[in-house]
Amino acid sequence: MNFASDNGAGVAPQIISAIGAAALANAPAYGADAWTQRARDALSAVFERDVAAFLVSTGTAANALALGALTRPWSGIFCHEEAHIHDDECGAPELFSGGAKLIGIPGEAGKLTPGALRDTLARFPIGLAKSVQPGALSLSQATEAGAVYRPEEIAALSAVARDAGCAVHMDGARFANALAHLRCSPADMTWRAGVDVLSLGATKDGALACEAVIFFDPARAADFEFQRKRGGHTVSKGRFLGAQMEAWLKDGLWLDLARRANSAARRLADGLAACAGVRIVWPVEVNEVFVTLPRSTLAPLQEAGARFYEWSSRATAKDALPRAGEAFVRLVCSFDTSDLEIDRLVGIVANDARA
Amino acid sequence: MNFASDNGAGVAPQIISAIGAAALANAPAYGADAWTQRARDALSAVFERDVAAFLVSTGTAANALALGALTRPWSGIFCHEEAHIHDDECGAPELFSGGAKLIGIPGEAGKLTPGALRDTLARFPIGLAKSVQPGALSLSQATEAGAVYRPEEIAALSAVARDAGCAVHMDGARFANALAHLRCSPADMTWRAGVDVLSLGATKDGALACEAVIFFDPARAADFEFQRKRGGHTVSKGRFLGAQMEAWLKDGLWLDLARRANSAARRLADGLAACAGVRIVWPVEVNEVFVTLPRSTLAPLQEAGARFYEWSSRATAKDALPRAGEAFVRLVCSFDTSDLEIDRLVGIVANDARA
Amino acid sequence: MNFASDNGAGVAPQIISAIGAAALANAPAYGADAWTQRARDALSAVFERDVAAFLVSTGTAANALALGALTRPWSGIFCHEEAHIHDDECGAPELFSGGAKLIGIPGEAGKLTPGALRDTLARFPIGLAKSVQPGALSLSQATEAGAVYRPEEIAALSAVARDAGCAVHMDGARFANALAHLRCSPADMTWRAGVDVLSLGATKDGALACEAVIFFDPARAADFEFQRKRGGHTVSKGRFLGAQMEAWLKDGLWLDLARRANSAARRLADGLAACAGVRIVWPVEVNEVFVTLPRSTLAPLQEAGARFYEWSSRATAKDALPRAGEAFVRLVCSFDTSDLEIDRLVGIVANDARA
Amino acid sequence: MNFASDNGAGVAPQIISAIGAAALANAPAYGADAWTQRARDALSAVFERDVAAFLVSTGTAANALALGALTRPWSGIFCHEEAHIHDDECGAPELFSGGAKLIGIPGEAGKLTPGALRDTLARFPIGLAKSVQPGALSLSQATEAGAVYRPEEIAALSAVARDAGCAVHMDGARFANALAHLRCSPADMTWRAGVDVLSLGATKDGALACEAVIFFDPARAADFEFQRKRGGHTVSKGRFLGAQMEAWLKDGLWLDLARRANSAARRLADGLAACAGVRIVWPVEVNEVFVTLPRSTLAPLQEAGARFYEWSSRATAKDALPRAGEAFVRLVCSFDTSDLEIDRLVGIVANDARA
Repeated sequence: MNFASDNGAGVAPQIISAIGAAALANAPAYGADAWTQRARDALSAVFERDVAAFLVSTGTAANALALGALTRPWSGIFCHEEAHIHDDECGAPELFSGGAKLIGIPGEAGKLTPGALRDTLARFPIGLAKSVQPGALSLSQATEAGAVYRPEEIAALSAVARDAGCAVHMDGARFANALAHLRCSPADMTWRAGVDVLSLGATKDGALACEAVIFFDPARAADFEFQRKRGGHTVSKGRFLGAQMEAWLKDGLWLDLARRANSAARRLADGLAACAGVRIVWPVEVNEVFVTLPRSTLAPLQEAGARFYEWSSRATAKDALPRAGEAFVRLVCSFDTSDLEIDRLVGIVANDARA
Repeated sequence: MNFASDNGAGVAPQIISAIGAAALANAPAYGADAWTQRARDALSAVFERDVAAFLVSTGTAANALALGALTRPWSGIFCHEEAHIHDDECGAPELFSGGAKLIGIPGEAGKLTPGALRDTLARFPIGLAKSVQPGALSLSQATEAGAVYRPEEIAALSAVARDAGCAVHMDGARFANALAHLRCSPADMTWRAGVDVLSLGATKDGALACEAVIFFDPARAADFEFQRKRGGHTVSKGRFLGAQMEAWLKDGLWLDLARRANSAARRLADGLAACAGVRIVWPVEVNEVFVTLPRSTLAPLQEAGARFYEWSSRATAKDALPRAGEAFVRLVCSFDTSDLEIDRLVGIVANDARA
Repeated sequence: MNFASDNGAGVAPQIISAIGAAALANAPAYGADAWTQRARDALSAVFERDVAAFLVSTGTAANALALGALTRPWSGIFCHEEAHIHDDECGAPELFSGGAKLIGIPGEAGKLTPGALRDTLARFPIGLAKSVQPGALSLSQATEAGAVYRPEEIAALSAVARDAGCAVHMDGARFANALAHLRCSPADMTWRAGVDVLSLGATKDGALACEAVIFFDPARAADFEFQRKRGGHTVSKGRFLGAQMEAWLKDGLWLDLARRANSAARRLADGLAACAGVRIVWPVEVNEVFVTLPRSTLAPLQEAGARFYEWSSRATAKDALPRAGEAFVRLVCSFDTSDLEIDRLVGIVANDARA
Repeated sequence: MNFASDNGAGVAPQIISAIGAAALANAPAYGADAWTQRARDALSAVFERDVAAFLVSTGTAANALALGALTRPWSGIFCHEEAHIHDDECGAPELFSGGAKLIGIPGEAGKLTPGALRDTLARFPIGLAKSVQPGALSLSQATEAGAVYRPEEIAALSAVARDAGCAVHMDGARFANALAHLRCSPADMTWRAGVDVLSLGATKDGALACEAVIFFDPARAADFEFQRKRGGHTVSKGRFLGAQMEAWLKDGLWLDLARRANSAARRLADGLAACAGVRIVWPVEVNEVFVTLPRSTLAPLQEAGARFYEWSSRATAKDALPRAGEAFVRLVCSFDTSDLEIDRLVGIVANDARA
């Protein structure tokens, strides 16, 4: 009953097999191997254009390196006030950008609106020396609150950003989950909507440790190899990143895994919604369920071995906030979350409600 | 016939098995898992004291994060002029230290001498504001030239460093190979000889991607978790680093693998030394062979699929430098280098010499 | 009629004389001169304890170097959301701290409250690796809105900061103006209220270019000389900073100059308050007047050569915001602002109001 | 008898007068004033083209900011192994470049040769990810050893640098002294010889605290205003930098002052050369004299109040090194060094030699 994070899940068998196969061979180091080349080709195919793709081991690295590539030290990086890059990476974007300033913007369910973005950007006039300069907009797809931007929302935000001199980055730690929800094409959700660079996460969706930084305009990636190496993120036996990415994309595995995780969250949300005293805080669009539970349920849940985080957020409408006697809780499902686990958790909550 | 680098080797079956087993389970993220805990315990046992150990995916990360933990931006980091941290990491130590200055010191076969170190340190007086301040000595064990410091040599260098206000770091990318050569204890080669922090590399010695930063005084590691996270080097499914390290250390696997690689290099060196026109440039102490070959052998070697680097070094005695018609070549063996490959390469060289 | 900034003012004759006298002599470079020593002694006397004081040329340098000395790259720096260090220094604190994160907190008239500070700090738990760590609180005295913290307010904020693991910095670009308003001692307004490091600005108060970074606990300054030098802020003919600071403090000149500027602002505010259609936005406590003027007055003011900035702020109570037809304006007085200028400006506004 | 440094000298009366005059006026802040504009115009006139010029207070700032503008964090900066930027600025170029690597190159009398530069650059292949990338060549004119590059020497070095992908920076802390020696035009010594950015120092040549960063191609300066502000080097009452630079250039004052300092050094060198037991180590081309003196002269010199530094250098031909009983000494003259002081110092040495 691990609902703490999709980081705690296992690894899809197809991916473990690919790693095992690659372990038997010799190969050139640092990404000059055939697995990495095939992964890059697969990414270009998936995104319907020639992309420059670089594999790294962590999502923080993918985000921070991408933002470092798009900005200068005197840049501002605009994001939701509770974005992972702002709240959960201990300043990694600051390190890799040489000290850029992250500017948090409020918004319901972790989403930015064009109006709020425009108002914020207006405080940073281009050319005013005392002010950091518009550098990048970073959007999380899905958001920290499990919400998904529709392509036209991304396009609208990108347009505002571009007008102000910003490049556009997408933090796609749960990109596959968002894609499975929207049923649009990867291209529609990224470069066709104005995204310049994507951090594409496989780890939370069944890989071992594999993320891609994808430049839709390869010219932007001219210096990236130096930035990655200098960050200690050029893995020496690079084939194992390539093998993971290749297997993850092959035959739509990535979307299968994401659909499974999304479905599990749907089942969980439906089950909980039917329990007395439970409110679903944000619409469940991907694999995360944010709910308020009667506080009395926490003890039986923990006794049963359920793992999850109590949550807090400034990005919630007032009437969704937990009231006295309630706990605000995040429950995350993965590709390998079983119906059994879900039903057991729901059962405990239902039981408590009846009591 | 991949003699280009031990980075190109495969992965030991015991380590792949451990990864596969860990893939089936759920676990807390970011290193709070049982595998990582067991790996830390094993490291403390191996080093005969309670160490603070942090696992990361690359050797560059291990080195640069370790040096960042030991220094401040106005520090000098003293190392061999051809050290990996100075020549081969694209400035990673500069990034993670906030801009410290690496000061290269010459020395035969990649080794520093106490005298050369002392003379260099004398140029950086403590308290002189215009000068970067002594921060850290970094020793490579084994060196870039495949040489090994004996414990008493390490102790002598550490003493000079400490007198000048420097902490002592060891780049142990080939630590196991050096240990297998010396047949001393890991403790003798590190903290008993004055080393404060070790970058211990498993990757080149049969792991997939696993390095440990080991603080022999855990108090020095107080901020390291922030530095690692901020660097994007805290792997989310951290159990896979733990599983690798645990399997690598178990039942002496690490030393078995290192001995195999060292023996392969020995066989290779002996074979080549017997060929006309071949000179071994530096004593073969670990798994690297530096030789001058008749330049005429390069074409047949490459045709046969042998992969290796032509080398250059300022750290060579004059009389060992390649002469006209010679190529200076580095050949690296791994745990999985076969006698067949070695004998085939030697055969081609021998054949050419006869021709 | 320069009401744009106290940065635009002239230099007090006593200070120019001191510079001229110092120009005739030879002296050791880099602050090892007698003028600098006397300035340091005078600062210790003024603050009633032995301080470690370092002179620099700009306020941005004083602030950013001070914050760099108090924090590490993974620190959070807490300040008002419109603080000069956050909005007007192009990321200088980020540069000198190695990439710390500035966290803006709202508050009326540029002032923080203990409650708002406590709530914000609660989001950054000590030891949580994904979160930047509480590093420093920075208070502006006087604030960007011309408000002054009373010593007990400073003490209350310092206590909250210290409990959360933060050091306390004061941006004293208008310290003398605040002091002249409060009529307390410099010690009461700083270290007795919990301030660790003060950026003391003389430039806006009649000096040419001179600011002091003052550590009330000299042990905190152990590395500052390196940080200053590395920042390019150790002036070679350092005696000219010493001479300015010495003359500025001598016989209470600094307070005389500040009182003159404050009085000028008082006269200006009183004059404007009497005009129809004018509202004083924030209490006038130092040398700045924030007012809403009928927008129709802007043209005649500019024609008359008056220089000032239109302002905007998120730190204003709603009912103080400019309404349709109004302009929100900042008017700054200096030690050399004449009654004539003030009365002329007021006259134009009064005239317009009558029209 | 201050021969320690030209940093210890006074300030030329014309410059003090200009400062005094500017102190009486109001002016826009941060360099938007008429003095700064006139200084910029004067610099364009002096260099015979439209330059982008930025005034700062220290030479370290001028050098480090200039290098930061020319490089990226993964750049190498190539300079003499004893260059001021490498040995005497506590890592300022590292700070302002975001951690670039300075690569010292040996050379007699502080001068680089095209051959040594080419050999060094060859170790940093363009595009090799593990290696920092050629970023900038920095030449000191005059060098740390008081030597002067002739325009054709600068051109030869610039050509080598440019071929390898480097921009060319000149550290002109003693630019005027070099110019006075060469009697060429400022343009010949800079952009016509391939220099991209010049740090032009007035401070050592009679100013109070004034240096200019001069971009010969203004397009290269696009971001410089942000870098300067972020470094805390945008002086608020900027007119005082403008006033100094304007006065320094006016009617050739800068060259008059430099000629006086050079002549003083010439007189000093001639006097010392005639003393028994004294050897001039490097040709005296500007205002510095490097000599070996009988060690017995040091005590009487110090008793007489003479101030100077004992020196050491790796950039000296072997036969010029001090022998037993000798001291290696640097004596620096300024525009205000008197014949009396010089003759007194020479007299003490001569007297000692006779004794």
